[in-house]
Amino acid sequence: MAAAAPPPPPAPAPSPPTGVPESAPIGHPIFYRIRLATPADVPHIHKLIHQMAVFERLTHLFSATESSLSTTLFNSPPFHSFTIFLLEVSRHPLLPLPPSPHFTPIERVITRELPLIDPEEDQFRSMGNGDVVVAGFVLFFPNYSTFLGKPGFYVEDLFVRECYRRKGFGRILLTAVAKQAVKMDYGRVEWAVLDWNVNAIEFNELMGAKVLSEWRICRLTEENWNEPSSWW
Amino acid sequence: MAAAAPPPPPAPAPSPPTGVPESAPIGHPIFYRIRLATPADVPHIHKLIHQMAVFERLTHLFSATESSLSTTLFNSPPFHSFTIFLLEVSRHPLLPLPPSPHFTPIERVITRELPLIDPEEDQFRSMGNGDVVVAGFVLFFPNYSTFLGKPGFYVEDLFVRECYRRKGFGRILLTAVAKQAVKMDYGRVEWAVLDWNVNAIEFNELMGAKVLSEWRICRLTEENWNEPSSWW
Repeated sequence: MAAAAPPPPPAPAPSPPTGVPESAPIGHPIFYRIRLATPADVPHIHKLIHQMAVFERLTHLFSATESSLSTTLFNSPPFHSFTIFLLEVSRHPLLPLPPSPHFTPIERVITRELPLIDPEEDQFRSMGNGDVVVAGFVLFFPNYSTFLGKPGFYVEDLFVRECYRRKGFGRILLTAVAKQAVKMDYGRVEWAVLDWNVNAIEFNELMGAKVLSEWRICRLTEENWNEPSSWW
Repeated sequence: MAAAAPPPPPAPAPSPPTGVPESAPIGHPIFYRIRLATPADVPHIHKLIHQMAVFERLTHLFSATESSLSTTLFNSPPFHSFTIFLLEVSRHPLLPLPPSPHFTPIERVITRELPLIDPEEDQFRSMGNGDVVVAGFVLFFPNYSTFLGKPGFYVEDLFVRECYRRKGFGRILLTAVAKQAVKMDYGRVEWAVLDWNVNAIEFNELMGAKVLSEWRICRLTEENWNEPSSWW
């Protein structure tokens, strides 16, 4: 995918971009893959969730451990309960994975004008697989619309590490979920965004998503639950 | 549960309520039960969902049929996917149900000062079971909190028929879901309300729920999905 085009120049004869010698390579490929996560990916998933909590200014709510994730994820076949798609990227073509009965990985390449520097490369290297790194994830699960009388998918989290943002990967991850929903004849895909997250709002517009502005999410936890002792 | 107490009278010596002879019975029991719904309940569930669409002014989004509900619900063991608790009520003690390995029905009685008239009694009679009628339902399914690293329940719908409202049944249904969440060591219970639904907002306050006012729900359907043809 090409970078966003600049606005049309005021002069009728555009000049070539400055600062890039004509002999420079015109593209730096990023090979990427979307695949189902496995229990072996939990350490990376845990780090990604923590980064997301930092981004959302919600670290005070973060208490997941690798152990709690391992215990509660991967207990059902994918798509029928909590499911994670992982985004892996590499500067080189990706080695094929063993076939999965549940999902055929999506593999593509995008080209960037400038090389991409990943300062966290060592922390997110994908299971001894050359220069392949984990760049993001999406966690989703079935929800249900009684009005449609059919399931959909709810996207709980979609996260791309900072140096890979604004390159279309968020859309690629969400599109993978939407494609899977269509494949399963599911009715819709839903998620929630923070109203101050301008990137997320822009992203929604790009995807063509509708914001249900009249609805508010409510939450009950054991701590704030007003249960009169006489109730049961 | 007693009806809401009236405000204190202005005169120091309150007079007895008018219109109710002193010899009238002081209580009219409503026996109620919360049980798991079964495929045989689909006709009632379909009618309840339609009433809910009318209440929420969203009948233009209602396309569920008894057939679509039957096909998509009841495919997994309860609590691991879409689950419905049904509220049944009767003026007489309820006959016991055969035991279920998944959930022991909750049975209680409340007393009202005045008898309750149900104008839809014939439409909602529960499977030839005397004067037992279906009065409401709650549909919920597991969701997941990556921050907690554990599942919760998401309540998609909670609905009580009009003549049974403001008697505590909504709270009783939601409390049944919360109790089940606690039993399964789930982290929280969440739902969404329309911001103009004052009853729902009052209900949240009563339950001690927190409204996540910064979050907005987003929805992607096949009709409004901006997918460039070159995307895949």
